[in-house]
Amino acid sequence: MPRTVRLVLEYDGTGLCGWQRQENGPSVQAHLEEVLARMTGAPTPVVGASRTDAGVHALGQVASFETASRIPCDGFRMGMNSLLPPSIAVLAADEAPPGFHPRFSAIGKHYRYSLLTRSSRSPLLRQRAWHRPGTAALDLGAMRETAAHLLGERDFSALRAAGCTARTTVRRLDEIAIGEPEPHRLVIDVRGNAFLRNMVRILVGTLVQVGEGRFTPAQIVEIVESGDRTRAGQTAPAHGLCLMEVLYAAPAE
Amino acid sequence: MPRTVRLVLEYDGTGLCGWQRQENGPSVQAHLEEVLARMTGAPTPVVGASRTDAGVHALGQVASFETASRIPCDGFRMGMNSLLPPSIAVLAADEAPPGFHPRFSAIGKHYRYSLLTRSSRSPLLRQRAWHRPGTAALDLGAMRETAAHLLGERDFSALRAAGCTARTTVRRLDEIAIGEPEPHRLVIDVRGNAFLRNMVRILVGTLVQVGEGRFTPAQIVEIVESGDRTRAGQTAPAHGLCLMEVLYAAPAE
Repeated sequence: MPRTVRLVLEYDGTGLCGWQRQENGPSVQAHLEEVLARMTGAPTPVVGASRTDAGVHALGQVASFETASRIPCDGFRMGMNSLLPPSIAVLAADEAPPGFHPRFSAIGKHYRYSLLTRSSRSPLLRQRAWHRPGTAALDLGAMRETAAHLLGERDFSALRAAGCTARTTVRRLDEIAIGEPEPHRLVIDVRGNAFLRNMVRILVGTLVQVGEGRFTPAQIVEIVESGDRTRAGQTAPAHGLCLMEVLYAAPAE
Repeated sequence: MPRTVRLVLEYDGTGLCGWQRQENGPSVQAHLEEVLARMTGAPTPVVGASRTDAGVHALGQVASFETASRIPCDGFRMGMNSLLPPSIAVLAADEAPPGFHPRFSAIGKHYRYSLLTRSSRSPLLRQRAWHRPGTAALDLGAMRETAAHLLGERDFSALRAAGCTARTTVRRLDEIAIGEPEPHRLVIDVRGNAFLRNMVRILVGTLVQVGEGRFTPAQIVEIVESGDRTRAGQTAPAHGLCLMEVLYAAPAE
């Protein structure tokens, strides 16, 4: 009987062309499938919870695959970690409950976006945080007011990439927390049930422009209600984004 | 009149052959001197506070140079940041007080060493933390007891690299703080007046071996008293080390 193995993955998105297998470079999915084919001797398609873009990092991506192999779950974890490139690692592997699907079973996701607002660039954060030097400090109050208006379930068409092919555009945002862990560092934690293509990055780019005074909170509310992508803010760059966690319902007792 | 400009530097040591100019690869010092020669039109030797090894990072290295150029200090900061490679940045530049020397004027240094003790490797920390998976947890109590015995001024010959050419081997350790900011992450902060070659890395390697039960605290005290390098622990790898800050006396009023 084939079983479904669930993986929790960490990766450094620098130099990867994102989650999804494609022609123009090495993807997380392609690396995983190649290693699993080598370990099991059979073609082994891998499904992921989030199709992260090129340059986006993950501390808690979830994926799964079906296999008829007898390799134990922890054998997959250790074997994959020895065969995968240094930029990708398996943190956990276990047997998925019946009917599990990384994306369709997920009830929520947590992304974190990191910014650096000081004048000098940072060598140690250059592939982890968006360097956006500002003459004046960002207005965190206005950013938080905007964030509070966007929580809940609504149509987020105004905050999705042009190429987004999702059939429905209603999503639920549960939390947008804007923190300053140290001077000149901004961390934006976004939690919701699911996200449209580039939605977190457009949300962050828009919030930063609110913080700079280019939009008022009321304008953003109006723009989101209009559903017009061309009126919302810029798309924040990929390298500041990290998929922190994918949430699933606790198994039924 | 030439003046002395003081720099505070951040760098990602990955891919650099360390602070000091040498034949076998790009060093921080060589990059700085090339950029300053280009900006001022004159050969401009740069002196650093710490000769960090290849792979070691810095958030607060201090350096200085003499120049007859009229470029203002902040002009140096901005110009150097646009010309230096992404792995090196100038965080601050100001005019040094008379007689300032980055190394001889320093009254102390703070280094931080990072470890990861979980089973799976970490793509996002692979160039920042020493991955040392352990079957059992490290005995932090024994590590802290050892650390407490090593504070103060003493001869640290047993904890220096074979090639160390320092004339005197007496140094003062002011603090060794061992923290666990999150599960499976260990951070060792070391503060002292000055350090012998590889002293922090040998100290960390030795403390980890105490944590693993291979040495007792009393054995380490005895080994340090013996002055015999061959009896102390291993040298922890460079990529876990970061020079956090160089301390100077406040200017006389």
